[in-house]
Amino acid sequence: MTRHDGRRPDQLREVRITRNWLDHAEGSVLVEFGRTRVLCAASFTEGVPRWLKGQGTGWVTAEYEMLPRSTNTRSDRESRKGKVGGRTHEISRLIGRSLRAVIDTKALGENTIVLDCDVLQADGGTRTASITGAWVALADAIEDARAKGLIAKDAKPLTDSVAAVSVGVVDGSPVADLDYPEDSTADTDMNVVMTGSGSFVEVQGTAEGAGAAFDRGLLDQLLDLATAACADLTQRQQASLAEPVRERA
Amino acid sequence: MTRHDGRRPDQLREVRITRNWLDHAEGSVLVEFGRTRVLCAASFTEGVPRWLKGQGTGWVTAEYEMLPRSTNTRSDRESRKGKVGGRTHEISRLIGRSLRAVIDTKALGENTIVLDCDVLQADGGTRTASITGAWVALADAIEDARAKGLIAKDAKPLTDSVAAVSVGVVDGSPVADLDYPEDSTADTDMNVVMTGSGSFVEVQGTAEGAGAAFDRGLLDQLLDLATAACADLTQRQQASLAEPVRERA
Amino acid sequence: MTRHDGRRPDQLREVRITRNWLDHAEGSVLVEFGRTRVLCAASFTEGVPRWLKGQGTGWVTAEYEMLPRSTNTRSDRESRKGKVGGRTHEISRLIGRSLRAVIDTKALGENTIVLDCDVLQADGGTRTASITGAWVALADAIEDARAKGLIAKDAKPLTDSVAAVSVGVVDGSPVADLDYPEDSTADTDMNVVMTGSGSFVEVQGTAEGAGAAFDRGLLDQLLDLATAACADLTQRQQASLAEPVRERA
Amino acid sequence: MTRHDGRRPDQLREVRITRNWLDHAEGSVLVEFGRTRVLCAASFTEGVPRWLKGQGTGWVTAEYEMLPRSTNTRSDRESRKGKVGGRTHEISRLIGRSLRAVIDTKALGENTIVLDCDVLQADGGTRTASITGAWVALADAIEDARAKGLIAKDAKPLTDSVAAVSVGVVDGSPVADLDYPEDSTADTDMNVVMTGSGSFVEVQGTAEGAGAAFDRGLLDQLLDLATAACADLTQRQQASLAEPVRERA
Amino acid sequence: MTRHDGRRPDQLREVRITRNWLDHAEGSVLVEFGRTRVLCAASFTEGVPRWLKGQGTGWVTAEYEMLPRSTNTRSDRESRKGKVGGRTHEISRLIGRSLRAVIDTKALGENTIVLDCDVLQADGGTRTASITGAWVALADAIEDARAKGLIAKDAKPLTDSVAAVSVGVVDGSPVADLDYPEDSTADTDMNVVMTGSGSFVEVQGTAEGAGAAFDRGLLDQLLDLATAACADLTQRQQASLAEPVRERA
Amino acid sequence: MTRHDGRRPDQLREVRITRNWLDHAEGSVLVEFGRTRVLCAASFTEGVPRWLKGQGTGWVTAEYEMLPRSTNTRSDRESRKGKVGGRTHEISRLIGRSLRAVIDTKALGENTIVLDCDVLQADGGTRTASITGAWVALADAIEDARAKGLIAKDAKPLTDSVAAVSVGVVDGSPVADLDYPEDSTADTDMNVVMTGSGSFVEVQGTAEGAGAAFDRGLLDQLLDLATAACADLTQRQQASLAEPVRERA
Repeated sequence: MTRHDGRRPDQLREVRITRNWLDHAEGSVLVEFGRTRVLCAASFTEGVPRWLKGQGTGWVTAEYEMLPRSTNTRSDRESRKGKVGGRTHEISRLIGRSLRAVIDTKALGENTIVLDCDVLQADGGTRTASITGAWVALADAIEDARAKGLIAKDAKPLTDSVAAVSVGVVDGSPVADLDYPEDSTADTDMNVVMTGSGSFVEVQGTAEGAGAAFDRGLLDQLLDLATAACADLTQRQQASLAEPVRERA
Repeated sequence: MTRHDGRRPDQLREVRITRNWLDHAEGSVLVEFGRTRVLCAASFTEGVPRWLKGQGTGWVTAEYEMLPRSTNTRSDRESRKGKVGGRTHEISRLIGRSLRAVIDTKALGENTIVLDCDVLQADGGTRTASITGAWVALADAIEDARAKGLIAKDAKPLTDSVAAVSVGVVDGSPVADLDYPEDSTADTDMNVVMTGSGSFVEVQGTAEGAGAAFDRGLLDQLLDLATAACADLTQRQQASLAEPVRERA
Repeated sequence: MTRHDGRRPDQLREVRITRNWLDHAEGSVLVEFGRTRVLCAASFTEGVPRWLKGQGTGWVTAEYEMLPRSTNTRSDRESRKGKVGGRTHEISRLIGRSLRAVIDTKALGENTIVLDCDVLQADGGTRTASITGAWVALADAIEDARAKGLIAKDAKPLTDSVAAVSVGVVDGSPVADLDYPEDSTADTDMNVVMTGSGSFVEVQGTAEGAGAAFDRGLLDQLLDLATAACADLTQRQQASLAEPVRERA
Repeated sequence: MTRHDGRRPDQLREVRITRNWLDHAEGSVLVEFGRTRVLCAASFTEGVPRWLKGQGTGWVTAEYEMLPRSTNTRSDRESRKGKVGGRTHEISRLIGRSLRAVIDTKALGENTIVLDCDVLQADGGTRTASITGAWVALADAIEDARAKGLIAKDAKPLTDSVAAVSVGVVDGSPVADLDYPEDSTADTDMNVVMTGSGSFVEVQGTAEGAGAAFDRGLLDQLLDLATAACADLTQRQQASLAEPVRERA
Repeated sequence: MTRHDGRRPDQLREVRITRNWLDHAEGSVLVEFGRTRVLCAASFTEGVPRWLKGQGTGWVTAEYEMLPRSTNTRSDRESRKGKVGGRTHEISRLIGRSLRAVIDTKALGENTIVLDCDVLQADGGTRTASITGAWVALADAIEDARAKGLIAKDAKPLTDSVAAVSVGVVDGSPVADLDYPEDSTADTDMNVVMTGSGSFVEVQGTAEGAGAAFDRGLLDQLLDLATAACADLTQRQQASLAEPVRERA
Repeated sequence: MTRHDGRRPDQLREVRITRNWLDHAEGSVLVEFGRTRVLCAASFTEGVPRWLKGQGTGWVTAEYEMLPRSTNTRSDRESRKGKVGGRTHEISRLIGRSLRAVIDTKALGENTIVLDCDVLQADGGTRTASITGAWVALADAIEDARAKGLIAKDAKPLTDSVAAVSVGVVDGSPVADLDYPEDSTADTDMNVVMTGSGSFVEVQGTAEGAGAAFDRGLLDQLLDLATAACADLTQRQQASLAEPVRERA
């Protein structure tokens, strides 16, 4: 089986993680999965939302949005429509939950980190790229807070890493990291979020349309593919964090 | 292991499916999973949304909402807040996708069926009860359309049934059909939608909070529980459809 | 003169008041006027809105809404439209005012009771059924608060009962408790809210369309009909409160 | 009994009806009931809303709004709040219904007249002043349309006139045309809309707060007061229409 | 060159400034530039918005809006559309900035003045009439506050006056104070706000459409026209403030 | 006089114009004025808005928005707030008007080009960078349409170029292209949009706060600075268009 861009079934697209893409944000990453390009900005602020006050715990949340011309044809802005669409809400909530799965909110103290994931260009896998990039921006924001003395020197708010990948069935074969042409023809589409240590954080599998329901055997194959792909992404996240950050001109 | 209400780990709450609960709707079901009570109304209308026109295919969609006092403490109405929340959107989309997985839209013709799932009382599992009940209301609406000649006598828009159940880990043990007290303390929470013939339509598993990520072994156990529970629910749906509908007073 | 369903001009439809229909709410009633079916939930919370704070008085308010398929053809949800319609606002305000007419807010203390009236099925008279049922739910919520020690043992926040009925001119004859077919053809439509002791709380009479204006004689006839009907409803409310509440399974 | 401004119980405030206050509108009236000042503009447009098309009938509707500083203390604009309040909707609907009670929509043809009633200064009775003034603007707009040949020479879309007044119980006595100080202390408040020929179009009586419910005798007294006051306002409307309209400088 | 209404190129339309047009507002002006008629109400309240608290400085802001039938054809209300349009926001902000240019916020103390500019009739120049009228209302509101002891006897919050005029190129000639027919055909349109002492507060020049860009020489001519016109308006503002205010009937 | 970053008063920041930054858009530019970074995407679609149909003319419009973390501290998203702020509207309208000043809409035919200007990083001058970059994206989109045969080979919809710069008074001295630290302390701030041939399209000068009004001499100096700076930007735009566009990896 050959994929339309020549990849093996289990092969990721080219992944690039550019840290410190912004000057103001406490952490920022331009993450690219092939032509998918997402700007992830981590904003650290002291204090927590009202409903958390006085409990000694922090908060991590996320907002995802697509620029109007990130896609093939222009979409209207949600700000102009006056409301945020269901898909946008759903992905924002997924990113936030995924990151909170590796955050010790006690160790974070009463601080809030917001991850803004803005899709500059979309070619499939924007939510999984967002999670993968946002975690790196989050890690940088936590180090920045530590350097500024906003959290304790020995606090360990990050308990693990998280990365995410999409897997699905294209032309009858299970493949990893679908691009837009693959995604739009896939029968089954699954997004899997895993920790660096190999546990599942989210498993979201969907059969799109009549007759696409999948059996347990296929589900197991997809989970195997996702497990391998997330392990690969975890290595790239660690490699990126190991590099010194280039100074912007 | 004993559950707080005395159920075995794999035991569903009492399930009641009352068809024809409304006089106007083409199909309607009051579905109860224990104290969770959802009113599912299927509205059949000729024609399709603009973006589908002229393609000879129909459309099935769903809207989910909770009454303000369905819960322990009153929530503000989304209509008064002027916007629909992320969770509401997410569940509405899930219900719609689940039903479309067993709909042959060509066989439906250019007709639309909207499933309104209004939660009258919430005690955990409102989305899975909604899917399970909505499918029965959908089946009734299709028979009603057939009886009125709105779809062909021999058309088979329904390719299968769907039912859904939540499974999760409570106090370290995998259990099925969590009620609210269980749901609010569960580490891992998974909603599974399956067809009557035993395939997966949706698998949505979530680890809630740090340290809750789950391994493959546990994931497999949860999928086993869900498979058995959905088979049980499928039988109850069929039994309900087999009964003559009582006439309302 | 014979009405289309065989009732006498002054005859109410079958009225059913089912208390305790919900498990969570402090008071709840499923009220039915014929096929019109409204779920009234009373939510008692300590404290008052900001503008009332520190004055030692309580607050009672109401929100009315129709489920999308309560009617013959489906209506869009107000939450999805992003705004609450004029009719919904108007009826919500009417219900709130009607209940406050029999509430001694001093005796209630700094507590708030919200009455949610959700129309599950509409067949005319939804606002009058709402008021009639909401008052019973309100009475139950006050007793519940008394039992929990949230209001004083001897406090009497309820100064009287309220009930409501629609009256109108159908085919030239004044009739009480119009159902939807009658309501939609009536020239004159009047909603009357009265206390248990026979005084008027609200009188809202409307001539629908050109030539429907009514003279004083007809107005007097309609008020007579409404007075008798409200007295009847008052008896049913008292009878319902006198019954022990059945325990839900 | 003396009213705080020296009026007799049945005495209206000084009423001024200034026609043609605007240059663009097809009909326009600045109506003053004492210090209450409302600008009523009638806009005539060919065509009707979509739901009325092709039926050969016209449409009359109204929108009421208060300027932010029409009142003693400034209120926020509804446009800035992003939603129209319940009271505004309710009054807009009342004005529209009242005018439609004297419109033969067939005779109007497929034309729409919108009445904008903007309260420039509020001192009680803004809705009744609006109705009274709007009818004169409506009459002018119809004559303007006749002059322009937009409706037939001999068409009679106006079947009668309408005027409105508030009546209520202040310090225990029934009085007509309450100003703001009276209105804010009244136990009972009733707005009555009547045709020029003395029939009722709307009767809206409200008991404000506990203990304010009113008996049939008082209701009769209030209706008597309103009948006399509306007859008086009808004369002023006719006198105003009889005057030649001054040309604006 | 003759203008369509016979004015000289540098001639203003008839300007009328009627103070105290409202009874409740701390300052109010009906300002007329020919047929353009704007009601400017100044509302003085103690306290400042949250973000200014505790700094010892006051705040002046403005809200502009057009009545639906101020224009030739009726426009929908922004309150009904649920959002405020770009033009409305832009002009509101311009008026606020213009007034703040002559306010010493320290001398004002922690008080807020809101200027509501509601266009009753529009015939070009509504924003410049608003600024010119609003300044007079602002001056009156400050004197009113001084008289009530809300600001110190010797405080001088007003450092200067402001007035505004539109200038533009009509049929190739630069003219001042464009009315609607001129404005709608002008190539270049410039709004200029100046202080009483002759300095610029705002200069907003716009070339409307292709080929309308203007050169420096023309820009200089327009600025000369505006300077003379603003000086003229300044005199009228001072003359108006010098008059005793007529008592309203 | 030395500027905080060592620039001469008339010196622009480093300007970079990167064409073709996106794969999908018909034209796209990442424009940088120092640390200010704006992504400008031009979307060409056949057809025009309804109000322009059938007139044989095209339409060019723009939408501007800032990413939440483009600024020093995070701002809430306008999509989440449910409304677009006044400043966003104002700048969107400015960009659209500026571009239309050099568009021959007849030559464009019935086609629409939307320019999305999303600020990725803000350090002053975001609106002027947007205009300068958007024009280049617009030029590319027009060439793309020509290449695809969507507009005629010899049509010349672009009549000129436009560029924009901010000028202002910082520490008493007029300077060009203010960065954020300069902008936030400037007394006077002026945005000037000019055509490539040296005419003015927009002049927007504002005195911020009391005492900042500026005299004619200063205004002249600022206009001189802007004229020189726009000429410089025009050269850079032309140089950028002259370069072959690098192929993206």
